[in-house]
Amino acid sequence: MRACRREPVPYTPIWLMRQAGRYMPEYRAVRAKTGFLELCKTPSLAAEVTVTAAERLGVDAAIIFADILLILEPMGVELEFTQGEGPVIHNPVREAVDVDRLRQLEDASALDFVNEAIRQTRRALRTDVPLIGFSGAPFTLASYLTEGGGSKNYVHTKRLMYNDRGAWHAMMSLIVASLVKYLNAQIEAGAQAVQLFDSWVGALSPDDYCEFVLPHTKAVIENVKPGVPVIHFGTGTATLLQLMREAGGDVIGLDWRVRLDQGWERVGHDVAVMGNLDPVALFADREVLLAQAKKVLDQAGGRPGHIFNLGHGILPETPVENVIALVEMVHEARI
Amino acid sequence: MRACRREPVPYTPIWLMRQAGRYMPEYRAVRAKTGFLELCKTPSLAAEVTVTAAERLGVDAAIIFADILLILEPMGVELEFTQGEGPVIHNPVREAVDVDRLRQLEDASALDFVNEAIRQTRRALRTDVPLIGFSGAPFTLASYLTEGGGSKNYVHTKRLMYNDRGAWHAMMSLIVASLVKYLNAQIEAGAQAVQLFDSWVGALSPDDYCEFVLPHTKAVIENVKPGVPVIHFGTGTATLLQLMREAGGDVIGLDWRVRLDQGWERVGHDVAVMGNLDPVALFADREVLLAQAKKVLDQAGGRPGHIFNLGHGILPETPVENVIALVEMVHEARI
Repeated sequence: MRACRREPVPYTPIWLMRQAGRYMPEYRAVRAKTGFLELCKTPSLAAEVTVTAAERLGVDAAIIFADILLILEPMGVELEFTQGEGPVIHNPVREAVDVDRLRQLEDASALDFVNEAIRQTRRALRTDVPLIGFSGAPFTLASYLTEGGGSKNYVHTKRLMYNDRGAWHAMMSLIVASLVKYLNAQIEAGAQAVQLFDSWVGALSPDDYCEFVLPHTKAVIENVKPGVPVIHFGTGTATLLQLMREAGGDVIGLDWRVRLDQGWERVGHDVAVMGNLDPVALFADREVLLAQAKKVLDQAGGRPGHIFNLGHGILPETPVENVIALVEMVHEARI
Repeated sequence: MRACRREPVPYTPIWLMRQAGRYMPEYRAVRAKTGFLELCKTPSLAAEVTVTAAERLGVDAAIIFADILLILEPMGVELEFTQGEGPVIHNPVREAVDVDRLRQLEDASALDFVNEAIRQTRRALRTDVPLIGFSGAPFTLASYLTEGGGSKNYVHTKRLMYNDRGAWHAMMSLIVASLVKYLNAQIEAGAQAVQLFDSWVGALSPDDYCEFVLPHTKAVIENVKPGVPVIHFGTGTATLLQLMREAGGDVIGLDWRVRLDQGWERVGHDVAVMGNLDPVALFADREVLLAQAKKVLDQAGGRPGHIFNLGHGILPETPVENVIALVEMVHEARI
């Protein structure tokens, strides 16, 4: 929390995106008996995997176990998680009439399982470990909505954006209004910071980001409860960093494609940054891994406001012992 | 050719990566009777689709119909193109022993079908339309080799890179020596410029690019026949542009994630640039498409040394009439 506010800290805090995930045997044991969406919707289990990961790794923050797309279901979207293929949306938004049938989230009660998981996690977690709530950011949600799942080229998304600006902005506005309620409900339930995952925003040119995304992300961030740090994260964002900063956030996520020192300079030293080890470094031999982590710390240069993290989520086959070694190394490094 | 040398030209030249491709009915008609690899290996057909595309679109260059991975087969790689899934390599390189069984290309005779296609194309093509030869660049070839196909996270590639530098550099050196022979044979056969496609290099951090890729790409480019322009292309390269420029090339490819004026400034005005319209802009309504193309031209600002292109290859569902309208618009625009 202090790093989010760029206050001095005794060591660089670290947590890892998707730290409660498939690479962890404890998580796989739970998943063996429970579908992904079912796990998200069972607060006791979501809390269990959240707490287990934070404790096992010894990280400085927990992030609630959930999915960036959960908000879409109560907006009228038929969401399914298929094995191997990831999220599938059975009724994608392709034109204005599809936008018309989207519902704005009236209140977050339809997502109360997330809030309840947050409450249970907050009770079970060590009091000095903050809990992060999150959701997908407007563009990333919109891209899943229009593509109907993951995408390589975002043809449906951009086609809607380019050819029906009215429908695009209407969809984004619905998402924004819904997100504000959802994130504030998570905060109400006990989330001490919130993260917006704009994982796929790197598919856009800076001009398109400015016109089609920035005002919407900004509207979400401006309406998050004051005083609660917002982490604004994306990947492939080297040319979008200043614009993301303009959209808002107390902490800007950097991926490994940008040197941390250069990325921080680009977003400005008056915000905090999070990142930016390549997730694949965790597959390297210990010596290489620690050398890469040291580079990240060196580039941060001990400046207050750096939260150590990966540049994207932990990958499924990551060796757990390497993650633990990384956490220990970051904690032991002098600032 | 003049644009490659940054000489003044009466209008901005344009061609489009993958211009002879699945979006074009003439191409689909040929492919209906011929497998992808078979088409690559049948010079008369490869020449036919190359010439047809250039004539139909009225572009200022042709690029020989081939695949970036063709060089791998005579290096001892079992390459297959499966429907839908793209290239599959049945014997991927995962460790040092796998590198040992790779063969360096002795001469380009094993790929003479490409050279023959170039000769036939050169004879059939209008004399004022230059013909471009190409191959995958060392990193992109190495990533296919190690992953065994396309990849999202490049875990095998980076693991080899990080954990067995010796094997990595040995593999890259074999690729480099083979590429030099292959590209020069294409030039010998009639290619007037050559392009290196480092399509997936954007997966790397700048430090990793420096250590694991730059010297190898540089070794290829330095050994291309003097006087023949080299186009050095990649995607997601915003943070790699200066390094790519250092590796070499008379023309540096820019994708749409970077503004053309800023990208050109980054690589330096003493090289030419190619790009950088988002391929998805071709799915937009005519007005939006032309406005986006105009932005690219405006950012180039009439400076000699701009070749108009997309930021990546044409996508399969692209409407042909939009491509033709784009070519006409670029030709009519004043410099």
